Order: sequence, then C-alpha cells, then structure tokens
Amino acid sequence: MTRAFNFGAGPAMIPTPVMEAIRDEFLDYQGTGCSIIEISHRSDTFIEVIDKAEALFREISGVSNDYKVLFVHGGASLQFSAIPLNLLGLKPARKAQYVRTGVFAKKAEKEAHRYGHIDCLANGEPLDFKTLPEIDESRISEDASYVYMTSNNTIYGTQWKHFPNTGNIPLIIDSTSEILSRRLDYSKFGLIFGGLQKNLGPSGMAVVCIRKDLLGYADAGTPPLLNYETYSQEKSLINTTNTFAIYVVMKVLEWLKAKGGLDAMEKINDAKAKLLYDIIDRSSFYLGVVKNPQHRSTMNVTFNLAKPELEEKFNRLAIEKNLVALEGHRSVGGFRASIYNAMPMEGVQALGQFMQDFEKKEI
Amino acid sequence: MTRAFNFGAGPAMIPTPVMEAIRDEFLDYQGTGCSIIEISHRSDTFIEVIDKAEALFREISGVSNDYKVLFVHGGASLQFSAIPLNLLGLKPARKAQYVRTGVFAKKAEKEAHRYGHIDCLANGEPLDFKTLPEIDESRISEDASYVYMTSNNTIYGTQWKHFPNTGNIPLIIDSTSEILSRRLDYSKFGLIFGGLQKNLGPSGMAVVCIRKDLLGYADAGTPPLLNYETYSQEKSLINTTNTFAIYVVMKVLEWLKAKGGLDAMEKINDAKAKLLYDIIDRSSFYLGVVKNPQHRSTMNVTFNLAKPELEEKFNRLAIEKNLVALEGHRSVGGFRASIYNAMPMEGVQALGQFMQDFEKKEI
Repeated sequence: MTRAFNFGAGPAMIPTPVMEAIRDEFLDYQGTGCSIIEISHRSDTFIEVIDKAEALFREISGVSNDYKVLFVHGGASLQFSAIPLNLLGLKPARKAQYVRTGVFAKKAEKEAHRYGHIDCLANGEPLDFKTLPEIDESRISEDASYVYMTSNNTIYGTQWKHFPNTGNIPLIIDSTSEILSRRLDYSKFGLIFGGLQKNLGPSGMAVVCIRKDLLGYADAGTPPLLNYETYSQEKSLINTTNTFAIYVVMKVLEWLKAKGGLDAMEKINDAKAKLLYDIIDRSSFYLGVVKNPQHRSTMNVTFNLAKPELEEKFNRLAIEKNLVALEGHRSVGGFRASIYNAMPMEGVQALGQFMQDFEKKEI
Repeated sequence: MTRAFNFGAGPAMIPTPVMEAIRDEFLDYQGTGCSIIEISHRSDTFIEVIDKAEALFREISGVSNDYKVLFVHGGASLQFSAIPLNLLGLKPARKAQYVRTGVFAKKAEKEAHRYGHIDCLANGEPLDFKTLPEIDESRISEDASYVYMTSNNTIYGTQWKHFPNTGNIPLIIDSTSEILSRRLDYSKFGLIFGGLQKNLGPSGMAVVCIRKDLLGYADAGTPPLLNYETYSQEKSLINTTNTFAIYVVMKVLEWLKAKGGLDAMEKINDAKAKLLYDIIDRSSFYLGVVKNPQHRSTMNVTFNLAKPELEEKFNRLAIEKNLVALEGHRSVGGFRASIYNAMPMEGVQALGQFMQDFEKKEI
C-alpha cells in the first residue's frame, strides 16, 4: 500500500504514524478487548482520553486558564449559529461586526443576521476575496458584543498575519483551516474555534476556546448543545460525544508535541509554503491567486495555470505521481495545495518538483 | 488479541467483521492512498458512501419514499431541541404531548418546554420507570403538533411492543437504543430517529426519518444544522459531515443485510433476550427490574442480585470471563446486559452460562 500525498482541503490528511497507531489498536484499545469507539463516553478509559486531549491542546496552544477548552458537536458551521446565540446578549445593542473575507466568513455573517444587528466591518468581496480588506479600527463600535474574523480562508488561500486591536470588544476567530499551525497569542481573543477536519482530526466536531467571562450570556432559546456554558459545566460531555474524533485529536496532538510543538511546526509550515510560493513567483506558467505576500496562507496555496487548457493534464499527471486532491474549490476552480500540519515537507517537495517538471515540458 | 463480549449500553459493540474490515482499509480506502476519513465529504468517493448508507437504511427498514432519511449532527440529544423547533409550528397552538418513560424521554420533554406548550400524556415516573405507563388515546389532543415517545428505554430496560393510534397527529419516536433491531411499520410515524452509537455505528450523529409533509414548519430562529428541511435540501451535506460515522453505518448496514435483514435480526434478538429473561425468571437469585414481560426490552436486560453484597464479585468474575461493561446505569445501579444487534448469540450464551454458574456457587 502506498499512502498518497493528499493535498485535499478537508477532511484532510492525518499524519501517517497517527493513522497507523489508530489502525493497530482499532479492535482492542489498551487490552480492554473493545475499540475506543465501543466504550462509554463516561468510562474512566474515555475520560482519560478527553482530559489528555484538552491538556495537550492547552500545552501546545499556550491558551491560559482564563479560557475553557470545549469539544463541541457539528463542526465549525454549527458555531456560526452558536456564536451569536451565546454572545450577542453581551450588550443590549445585540450588535456584532463581521469581517467578510470568504465563503465561510459570509456564511457566519449571514447566520448571525437572524439573531441581531450585524455590521460588515471590512469587505474583501469586491476584490474577489483574493486580497484581505483593510480593517479600520476606528470603525469598531463600543456597543458591539464582538468582532468576528476568519483567520485563514481555505478557498482563496488568504491568511491574516496580524489581528486588529479590538480593545475591550471580544475578538472571535474562526481558525478552522489553520488551528495549531502557528504560534498565536490566544489572550488577544475572546473566543477562537476550529473544526477538527483540517489540522486536528476527523470531521464532525470543533474545538472552542472561550474566555470564561464571556460565558453565561446565551439567549434563552439556545439549545443546550449550542450553549458554551452548558458545555463548560459538563466538561464537553452534555450527551454522548463523538468519542472517535476526540480520540484522534489526542493522538494528533501527541504527534504534534513530539514534533516540537508550534514553534517547530510553524517553521516547517513556513518553509513548505515558501517552497511553493517561490516556484509560483519565479514562473509565468503558474499564476498565484493571492498576489500580496502578506496575505498569503501558509495552509492553502492557490494557483492557476496560465494555460487553463492544461489543467486536466496537470491534474492527471499529478495523480500519477501520487499527488492527489489538488483541484481548487468548486466555486473558484484552478488548483489548491492544502499543506496542513500533517503534510510532510517530502510531499511539498514532490509537488514542487512535479510543478517544475510539468512547466519545463509544457511551456 | 481477544475481543470482549461488550455489554455496554453505548457507545456499544460494533460487529467484529465490520471492525476488521474498517481496520484493514483504514489507511487506504479502495486504492485511493487516502483513508475514508481523509477525503472530502463532497468527493465522488464519499457521496457513494452516504448514498449507499441511505439506500441500505431504506431497504432494511422498509421506510417508504414519503420519508426523507437524514444524517444529522449531535446525536439524539440535539434532536430533543430540533424536534420542537421543526414541528411545534405545525399548528397554531404550539402544543405537543410527551410520554414520560425514562431519563431521555424526560430530557426531551424538558427541552421542548422552552419552545411551546408541553403536556405529559402518560407518566411512568411514579412507577420508577420500571413499568410502561398506560396511554389514554382519548387524551391525544386535536390541537397537538405531535405526540412524542421513546420506544426503548435503555436505562430501565423497557420497550414498547405496540404504539398508540395517534390518528392524524404525527407520532415522533426516539428509537436510539433499538433502531433496526426489529420490524416496525414506519408509516405509523411522522418522524423516527436514533443516535448511531448503539445499533448503527460510532457516536456523534443520528439518523432521522421524517415524513416529507412535515418539512417546512421550522421556527424562524432554527439554526440550519437543526433544520430538517435544510438537511433535506442539501442531502445531509449542509456542512462537512461526520464522514467516519456515515462510513461505519454503511458497513454495519451491509453486515445487517447479509445477516438476513430485520426479520432474521428480530428473531435472533428475541432469542437472545429470552435466554437471559428465562434465567432471571427461573431464579430467585436474580431479580429482573422489569416484571411485566410485555414491557421488557429485547435490547437492554436489567437485573439486580438478591444479595447486593455480591455485586462487586459478580462483576469482577464476569470480566475475567471476558463479559464486560455489565454495570447498570450510574443512576440506577445493578446490572444491565445491552444485547444490541452486534452482540452475537455466543456472547449471550456465555453470559447466561456465567450467571447460572455464579448462582450455583453463591446461592
């Protein structure tokens, strides 16, 4: 069996050593005679898993004890509803300001409109989301319950390197497609969350870090499984949780810690991204989607071919070289190399070599 | 490696041949070089999986095309919120009638209270939920949006063999702990749902079958990931779904079909339950929790020891015999043998033999 270099945007590649370890104990977890997916979420065995997953997340991210770390149902998208339901009530104006930088930022903004007064603080749509918009900090409103941003935009390949100073207005960050890929100062955020399926594990859940003083403001009609205070009280076990996902997260975080944690991982991720962007920038055959180097994602490298008629051939030959899932998002086309934590440098080098070889032959 | 006979109530045992098949293709699904958990939920490969899971569910259950079959986030508990949000609006009275037969039925009822006028149609609580209450059909209200029942009560070990005639009032069934364990006439239900983690797969999701004419009445504030109409329109792929869970469901349903489907499975389940209840009924050493044979669950066989001081020894010796997770729910104590579809007759026979041997030695 050959494992592919899988550049899919998510559900994405999980480190091969992690996958092998999961496979090897899949029918019998630690001599119990049962799989980790066949035991109670309230068993000592599973409690050890979820506690370890949380402890590793705290250790690796550096998030302080002023924050709760929660494992929540429904992936990032369910948080698009949960965030306004939990946080709009922070202030009587029920107002929030959203930064529109892509499809998922727009979805979150649209969903929030159903619950309060939503203001678009900055809009990248006129630039087709290929450039990050300027944020005018003077427009941040004192009566806003929160400011909302998406730190990495998977579809377009943009990423915020710096965040605005929102003062005492809580800054909410969707970091789904870059969570634990670089060192971030969590103390700047009121809430930071991410779906698991890109850097942390399989799909279906999200991790939410919320500053404790923001708990307790949920609207009366908030379902318990969307209420962060309820998750906090029940230590993420309100009901039967997705035990498999949390178990995989624990394994992935063990791997990430052994790799040297965020400082080491950020260096690797920067080098991986640089390798591809350098090839794109040196070439007129490949056209980078995001022109401004300060706006470029280290997680999703997006590009087109100057000769679009070669796209099918590029993709077919890439697959022959075991470089898979390079197609761009269905809404934009072109190509996208998602190079999350689990993608080894070796895979990026193989892609870089392929791109250069293909260019030489076809130019 | 020895697989235990795992009598846990859930997340529960998954058939060993299914577990082996998942393990064997865990790193490389059908020669793609990627795991099924590492590919896009919108890829052709995964669409084939979810389509097959739905088709098998339809074939095995016999549910007609008048119903949508949906895979939804959050397990059964999130449906406790989703059901009133989707269905109370069916009638202007915003009224629903709940049958109170256990902890989860109560949770569902409590949650519904936040959204409308909720009436307890029948109450098993005064009988400690060990007996099913009588349902007075004449009390079913014409202005009710729905009647809600839990078909199998995992904690106490009760199960409805027949359902009331609710006329034109939609009957909603939580069948989490018995779904696809016996032949049921789905045309009697407006909506029937079940968490996956007992008879269908791993934890974190539920299957919902909803009659199509009940779609479209959700309250305005219903989050999209709780809105059955949105799930219907998006064929369960509103956002990145729990791909692993749906994949395991497909595998479990393939196994169930090969076993002979519901008619065969119901016979096996009846025989498994009879074996244990017969031992309990012939003994004064074991005390069945549910006395009325018509109320006894074929899925969860609950019993106490006449000498409770022997409980610890019973459990310890059972584990030595590879019979695990027999402890009753933390709220009731005693013992509970959960014998879902995946528990082979061989496991039940081993438990029966152990119970008889233990009784002989200790009586």
